[in-house]
Amino acid sequence: MNAHGNDSSTRHVFDTAIALTGEDGTALQGQTHPDYGNMVGPFGGVIAATLMNAVMRHPQRLGDPVSQTVHFAAPIADGGFSVQARIMRTNRTTQHWQVELLQQGEVAAFATFVTAVRRETWSALDAAFPEVPPPVSIEPAAPIARAAWTARYEMRFVDGAPLVAHAHTDSSQTRLWIRDTPGRPLDFLSLAAMCDAFYPRIFVRRPKWVPIGTVALTTYFHADAGQLAALGSAPLLGVARALRFGNGFFDQSAEMWSEQGELLATSHQVVYFKE
Amino acid sequence: MNAHGNDSSTRHVFDTAIALTGEDGTALQGQTHPDYGNMVGPFGGVIAATLMNAVMRHPQRLGDPVSQTVHFAAPIADGGFSVQARIMRTNRTTQHWQVELLQQGEVAAFATFVTAVRRETWSALDAAFPEVPPPVSIEPAAPIARAAWTARYEMRFVDGAPLVAHAHTDSSQTRLWIRDTPGRPLDFLSLAAMCDAFYPRIFVRRPKWVPIGTVALTTYFHADAGQLAALGSAPLLGVARALRFGNGFFDQSAEMWSEQGELLATSHQVVYFKE
Repeated sequence: MNAHGNDSSTRHVFDTAIALTGEDGTALQGQTHPDYGNMVGPFGGVIAATLMNAVMRHPQRLGDPVSQTVHFAAPIADGGFSVQARIMRTNRTTQHWQVELLQQGEVAAFATFVTAVRRETWSALDAAFPEVPPPVSIEPAAPIARAAWTARYEMRFVDGAPLVAHAHTDSSQTRLWIRDTPGRPLDFLSLAAMCDAFYPRIFVRRPKWVPIGTVALTTYFHADAGQLAALGSAPLLGVARALRFGNGFFDQSAEMWSEQGELLATSHQVVYFKE
Repeated sequence: MNAHGNDSSTRHVFDTAIALTGEDGTALQGQTHPDYGNMVGPFGGVIAATLMNAVMRHPQRLGDPVSQTVHFAAPIADGGFSVQARIMRTNRTTQHWQVELLQQGEVAAFATFVTAVRRETWSALDAAFPEVPPPVSIEPAAPIARAAWTARYEMRFVDGAPLVAHAHTDSSQTRLWIRDTPGRPLDFLSLAAMCDAFYPRIFVRRPKWVPIGTVALTTYFHADAGQLAALGSAPLLGVARALRFGNGFFDQSAEMWSEQGELLATSHQVVYFKE
């Protein structure tokens, strides 16, 4: 067992960080975890996963996540919080959800979900799987000491590492191999968190530190539970880029691929920045 | 005045379609409009705009829309509905919202919003403005008789018209010039609706009719109110493409540009399809 409680007989620190306790159907209790701390408060990806966890453990859940939208409505303080999931509508094969996270009686974050029972249909891939060097050929980047969560991911940057003085800064694109540290079998929860593990694009496009914060994050899940489980703890290829920066906000879009070229999830967010 | 009530002294049919009546802070009343009917129920874009309208007319609104996520939770029947807006959190310059649309006491659609007071900052454009022929050089497409709403938009397809047997079908991309018919000065409401006016990508990628339905739609607004107003009723360039189709769902992403090359909005949705 290492410092982060990872061996075959104990829970992965990610599962501890997203854990919710309490009786089904009532407000559940959660707690921020120092290992997934950010510069201020918790890493947004682990909050996204925690809100999804309220749906995943709900006894009336129908199917698996198809989409998730998270609003980071206010700073979340380190410590405890409560989470309440509400089924907005249940159809034959799809279900719509709203989940709220409260601190001191106020909504600090909330999320909406679509879950669905998926069945095989015609399929096609329109996005192109990027040709990049394999993960083993790239050294993992050093984590950022002030942001504990960065040590919980192994990140091997193909290009677009943040806060580097680039030869050219006309692109906000990053491509990287990423996985949980220590390794953890992939599922919807860890994939939801990983979709928020891209550094804000402004730090790639403009190598200057400014206060930023994700305001809202939407992820679409293309893979099913079996496909994710089959990937184990293998690294995923993440690709992220921004489209437009201006008047205090920018948007960024990301793709998450398996090494075999399956598009597992696509994710979009709008981020506040100062200056 | 024409058949759709458009002259300088009367309300545009779009404004009639998204109108809400009732006292501020209570449940408001709306009504589907036959001019924006779809094959079954109303056009989703006009529902998105109606839900936004509940925020726009709210006396406690702070700033303008930065993001909108709409869940189409169940089929909406032609006729009346009620809409209730709730402020989830108000910060110094941003505000988070949830809005529900009810029919027969059940949630049929709901939306979340971020509004913000925006101020000038550093800006940059990472998306590329597509080089396409000007709108006047392309004939408007004929509307689809079974979908009344298609007659409420002037659509000039550069490429990727739906349900056409293509020489090659390996791309789901559409580029088109689009504006309201009759003309109406652009604002957040009409832009929100227009972001849902792209035909489902499956009909571009695979020229075969199947039942489909948008499940959730997220739009990020990059322009401010002044920028939109300055565009009047000029056509916008819309670009849409899918990333992945499979197991009953696909995602599509869209960009909305002014003729002058300003990126006004980016939009993403996940769509259910049968077979």
